Amino acid sequence: MSEHSRSGVPAGDLPVLRLRRNEDRRIRAGHLWVFSNEIDTARTPLTGLARGALVQVLSDRDQFLGYAYANPNALICARILGRDAACPPDRAFLARRLAVALSLRERLYREPWYRLVFGESDGLPGLVLDRYGEAVVGQIATVGMEALREEVSAAIASVLAPRVLVWKNDSAARDLEQLPKSLAVSCGEVPEELGVREGRLHFSVPLRAGQKTGWFYDQAANRALLARFLWPGARVLDVCSYAGAWAITALVNGAAEALCIDASGPALEYAARNAAANGVSLGTLRADAFDAMKALGEQGRRFDVVILDPPAFVKRKKDLPQGQAAYRKLNQLALNLIERDGLLVSCSCSWHLAADDLVALIQAAARHTGRFVQILAAGGQAPDHPVHPAIPETRYLKAFFCRVVRE
Amino acid sequence: MSEHSRSGVPAGDLPVLRLRRNEDRRIRAGHLWVFSNEIDTARTPLTGLARGALVQVLSDRDQFLGYAYANPNALICARILGRDAACPPDRAFLARRLAVALSLRERLYREPWYRLVFGESDGLPGLVLDRYGEAVVGQIATVGMEALREEVSAAIASVLAPRVLVWKNDSAARDLEQLPKSLAVSCGEVPEELGVREGRLHFSVPLRAGQKTGWFYDQAANRALLARFLWPGARVLDVCSYAGAWAITALVNGAAEALCIDASGPALEYAARNAAANGVSLGTLRADAFDAMKALGEQGRRFDVVILDPPAFVKRKKDLPQGQAAYRKLNQLALNLIERDGLLVSCSCSWHLAADDLVALIQAAARHTGRFVQILAAGGQAPDHPVHPAIPETRYLKAFFCRVVRE
Repeated sequence: MSEHSRSGVPAGDLPVLRLRRNEDRRIRAGHLWVFSNEIDTARTPLTGLARGALVQVLSDRDQFLGYAYANPNALICARILGRDAACPPDRAFLARRLAVALSLRERLYREPWYRLVFGESDGLPGLVLDRYGEAVVGQIATVGMEALREEVSAAIASVLAPRVLVWKNDSAARDLEQLPKSLAVSCGEVPEELGVREGRLHFSVPLRAGQKTGWFYDQAANRALLARFLWPGARVLDVCSYAGAWAITALVNGAAEALCIDASGPALEYAARNAAANGVSLGTLRADAFDAMKALGEQGRRFDVVILDPPAFVKRKKDLPQGQAAYRKLNQLALNLIERDGLLVSCSCSWHLAADDLVALIQAAARHTGRFVQILAAGGQAPDHPVHPAIPETRYLKAFFCRVVRE
Repeated sequence: MSEHSRSGVPAGDLPVLRLRRNEDRRIRAGHLWVFSNEIDTARTPLTGLARGALVQVLSDRDQFLGYAYANPNALICARILGRDAACPPDRAFLARRLAVALSLRERLYREPWYRLVFGESDGLPGLVLDRYGEAVVGQIATVGMEALREEVSAAIASVLAPRVLVWKNDSAARDLEQLPKSLAVSCGEVPEELGVREGRLHFSVPLRAGQKTGWFYDQAANRALLARFLWPGARVLDVCSYAGAWAITALVNGAAEALCIDASGPALEYAARNAAANGVSLGTLRADAFDAMKALGEQGRRFDVVILDPPAFVKRKKDLPQGQAAYRKLNQLALNLIERDGLLVSCSCSWHLAADDLVALIQAAARHTGRFVQILAAGGQAPDHPVHPAIPETRYLKAFFCRVVRE
């Protein structure tokens, strides 16, 4: 592909992907994704490229737009890594990106428990790094980042020197890139459990069997908000509780009692253990969330606060109608369990469900159950999951704090 | 209009407004506004109604939808007060609404400094009540609420018994309802100044010359967030500072210095006085925000944190293009003043400017100035300004906390 390189274009030995006319606009506005139908494949065919190859992306007029890695078989055929022609994506480049990401977290957090790298939002598409004290757990979602793994591991070692670096490459996103799932250790030994600190609380979670990298750092800021809105003596229901972080936050902040519902027995065992480790105790109920809430309602159980933090019901766009129905049903069941003057915390981590749509579903559920809802706060991801303003896909988490009264 | 009353419809002596077919949907979904073109004026003409008359709103099939007050001359010709046929909007009804509003604030705040009633969101359309310790300052925006003023005053006396109740009826919204502007005292004496407490800070603001009721409680939660994102030694620029709340919050939380820009000399005098009262000091610059930021840039002045909290640039929908250009320009000027690794707090209180649109303007400004922006948090109104989930118009405030680095 060397015939596509031109004098004046740096790192001229990298293959070129040339965009069709006007397809450079979104990239120039700041987005990092190049879709395969945006490539001028007559001049720069995708077929010859190695999976994960580093490339230079040019406009139809041969203007340099950025360095990227490519996946010729994926819908998103390239992701921009950097726009500075003088800085090709080598180990030094990766170390700089890591250092910029780290400096934000060190400013935001007193202790090293946070998401260190949030993919595109930190200029490192396809890469997630969560920090658990001296351990780092990484997840790679793309072929291009997989190809850079050794370089990334070396950059992490140079910037952070963690005692443990584990690649927990088991996310569903890998299927889209035809990547196998695996657990690999880069340095240290794979720990059975991870210790987490969140504010003044501490938790244990399993690594291998845990969800995501083990912990949901994205909800940390919303849990801090819960403490703000809670009142002494509140009876709390934590639906889809995983390891109990919401319930324990509530109990430590004055709740009188908390019940965790989850479909996973091991998750509930961790919830009970984590509660004890923080000097509180909670109830657990292993069940499907919908069934359990329906049953609690029929038994006449009532709560002051219900937290809904379900898994994504809308994983693909075509699941939207079914997913919306599920969110509405879940919120309806929750509102029925809240008596008098209470609080509903209604979350969704489905990117495909817009914040306004979740509000509409909550309101529909409220009207259906004869409740009046006031939204006190609309939370998003914690600041260690920054939103990239040009990439709507990086903003996925919604958490509405709703006061509930009878109409 | 008694021929429109029917047996079975409660409070049958109130005039009826009957909606056209299907025009009941938005109301049934929870919205409180009835537009004049939704009325079946052939059967229930608006012309005969007194300005501010209490009415009952019925569907085209004579189903009771709610009690409302009417303004036959306004585009929004009626606003629903209540949906319970057994509870007509009398003094007891108003006192109940106030008590429900008060119980939320008493749960949220330790001290009585907050917005007590936020219009539609508290089921009291057209009414704003801000509480300043023992003083309450009210604002009425509609003819219908103006007609209820004496009843509301009596209800406030019964629920709160404030030492002072002042009606500061000078909002621009009154023009739409052809209401004159006035300052009236309901009990006590009109104070020269209001004292405000926000967290551990305290401020003084003028009542008559002050903006809105005197204070912007809506930004209190965002100012608390600023403290979270600030770092020791930061140099802060507070643009459109009014009485200095943002700058003083920053200084008390570790900022090394702060400069307030405002077009109002008296506002800046209050800013300096409020700083001293909280044990800090700040600089002031009386100037147009755009001119001042441009000049600071030319002088080579740089800041770590810039806070943009301008008045609404988009007051009417037709102002949107001009307003967007102004927000973009303001953000561009701000980004140019931020060097290395800084923070931009970019606010808009224009309801007509959607949150996503402000993000797009910030991103455009970032690309233009060679900055990379990460959104760390997206704040809205403080919880004493709850959002009504069926009324998008009740959600107006945006505050984006953006980390800024060079690209």
